[in-house]
Amino acid sequence: MLLLVLDLVGIAVFAASGALAGVRARLDVFGVSVLGATTAIGGGVLRDVLLGATPPNALRDWRYLAVPLAVALVVFRFHPAVAGQRRMILLADAAGMGLFAGTGTATALAADASVLASCLIGMTTAIGGGVLRDLLLREIPVVLRREIYALAALGGAVVVAAGQRTGLPDGPVLVAAVLLAGGVRVLALWRRWNAPAVS
Amino acid sequence: MLLLVLDLVGIAVFAASGALAGVRARLDVFGVSVLGATTAIGGGVLRDVLLGATPPNALRDWRYLAVPLAVALVVFRFHPAVAGQRRMILLADAAGMGLFAGTGTATALAADASVLASCLIGMTTAIGGGVLRDLLLREIPVVLRREIYALAALGGAVVVAAGQRTGLPDGPVLVAAVLLAGGVRVLALWRRWNAPAVS
Amino acid sequence: MLLLVLDLVGIAVFAASGALAGVRARLDVFGVSVLGATTAIGGGVLRDVLLGATPPNALRDWRYLAVPLAVALVVFRFHPAVAGQRRMILLADAAGMGLFAGTGTATALAADASVLASCLIGMTTAIGGGVLRDLLLREIPVVLRREIYALAALGGAVVVAAGQRTGLPDGPVLVAAVLLAGGVRVLALWRRWNAPAVS
Repeated sequence: MLLLVLDLVGIAVFAASGALAGVRARLDVFGVSVLGATTAIGGGVLRDVLLGATPPNALRDWRYLAVPLAVALVVFRFHPAVAGQRRMILLADAAGMGLFAGTGTATALAADASVLASCLIGMTTAIGGGVLRDLLLREIPVVLRREIYALAALGGAVVVAAGQRTGLPDGPVLVAAVLLAGGVRVLALWRRWNAPAVS
Repeated sequence: MLLLVLDLVGIAVFAASGALAGVRARLDVFGVSVLGATTAIGGGVLRDVLLGATPPNALRDWRYLAVPLAVALVVFRFHPAVAGQRRMILLADAAGMGLFAGTGTATALAADASVLASCLIGMTTAIGGGVLRDLLLREIPVVLRREIYALAALGGAVVVAAGQRTGLPDGPVLVAAVLLAGGVRVLALWRRWNAPAVS
Repeated sequence: MLLLVLDLVGIAVFAASGALAGVRARLDVFGVSVLGATTAIGGGVLRDVLLGATPPNALRDWRYLAVPLAVALVVFRFHPAVAGQRRMILLADAAGMGLFAGTGTATALAADASVLASCLIGMTTAIGGGVLRDLLLREIPVVLRREIYALAALGGAVVVAAGQRTGLPDGPVLVAAVLLAGGVRVLALWRRWNAPAVS
């Protein structure tokens, strides 16, 4: 139940991130909806395909489509009220990444994947939607750019796996993972933490 | 049987659309063949992976490879005779999209996917090949750009699902779906129907 | 056993090709690692998903992650010593392509896929990592550009399938396939063999 709610919240914020990116790229209302929905469910579809859980959850449950479409339409309608789209996109992306790092790992563990596979699938779930969004808009994916990203996602995944192993209650562990992954990403953005690059 | 024929026709027209786009991007004969084949079978491979029907049909049946390669070679050889490549690409793309919206949905229903999942998988089948083609050529995918596209594909998918539910004969329903999805797309191109965009 | 060793060698050289491309695109150390790992395991993940062997091998065996990360870090650290990155990328890519053409086909045959499907899945394994690398860096994938590429990969795949059919010993056949596919590609680069393009 908590898993479903967090998953739908992750879908909502990733839909917002995709829709805002679509508005910024001057797409029409359909393009914004398609991009919002793709960003929102992309990570989860990837997760289910990697787990062999087909058809993917996002294609079987109407809420996984209704939520991102509603969010995309709201974003499209009210975007002038949203100042500073780039910052909003990054924040929504960080929240969605944190949520999917936690729920993706928990879903993989629940499907009897090994601990290692679950962490990697959780990280992939967290990264997938944003990569799709950036690829479709012809931008270099955020995960390859300057800030710590994949590592934050992996951190959240490891928290869920470790919590499950040590028998801690699922709810608080999931919330801690979400806060860790999303929080590290936001901190990295805010403090401009950067990894060393080629000089 | 009708499903197979319509599927192969869809593959042929999507191969033409991919090959024409490859010629336009000045690829060599191998690049044109690879792009034609990828555009042609991309949607169907995606459909089969989402349904868990592996290995995908397009990799098991030699006709699914022979048809797009033959089409790509013909397009490569005779492209100077084809005036107005951009218009031809759009028309072939609309035909392939309509065909795959119908056959993709029917295939998913035949594989016991739910009605909702079948419509979404049909839409994905219809959209997938064109998205791959555009991504590989570094263009913003047609489905995100100005004209009604995903909605036309979804319309064709819904017709097939509704026809199956009400027990109408499969053949005419499939043809109606193809005509609806492809027709709406062509009309949208011809009349320049556009959805509202951000001003 | 030979399959595992060749697979890991393929992963190492594709990791080098991805990491070098990341250094060239001036990514930071995390971006270089992510790109190296994605390029290295992309083809194998695609292969396993197409075979329905989920979760993919690369997500279950820690060596499939440790090897590309170690290679990426070494490349990142010592890249100034590596003169002529573009040439190095092309050589590593050719080696990885040849290795995956052989191992991908052998893995598919071992998973009871048909001969045709195995050849096509082997070719996809060989091509997949490089396509992902190029897409993520917004370049037109090498497989679509001027030199013979998909054909070399297919050649290696056919050698493995033919060897298995005629009952030749697996080891030498696999090595021959790797040398053929990688060798043709290197020759094509060296002699500037090009296929006819649109004039």
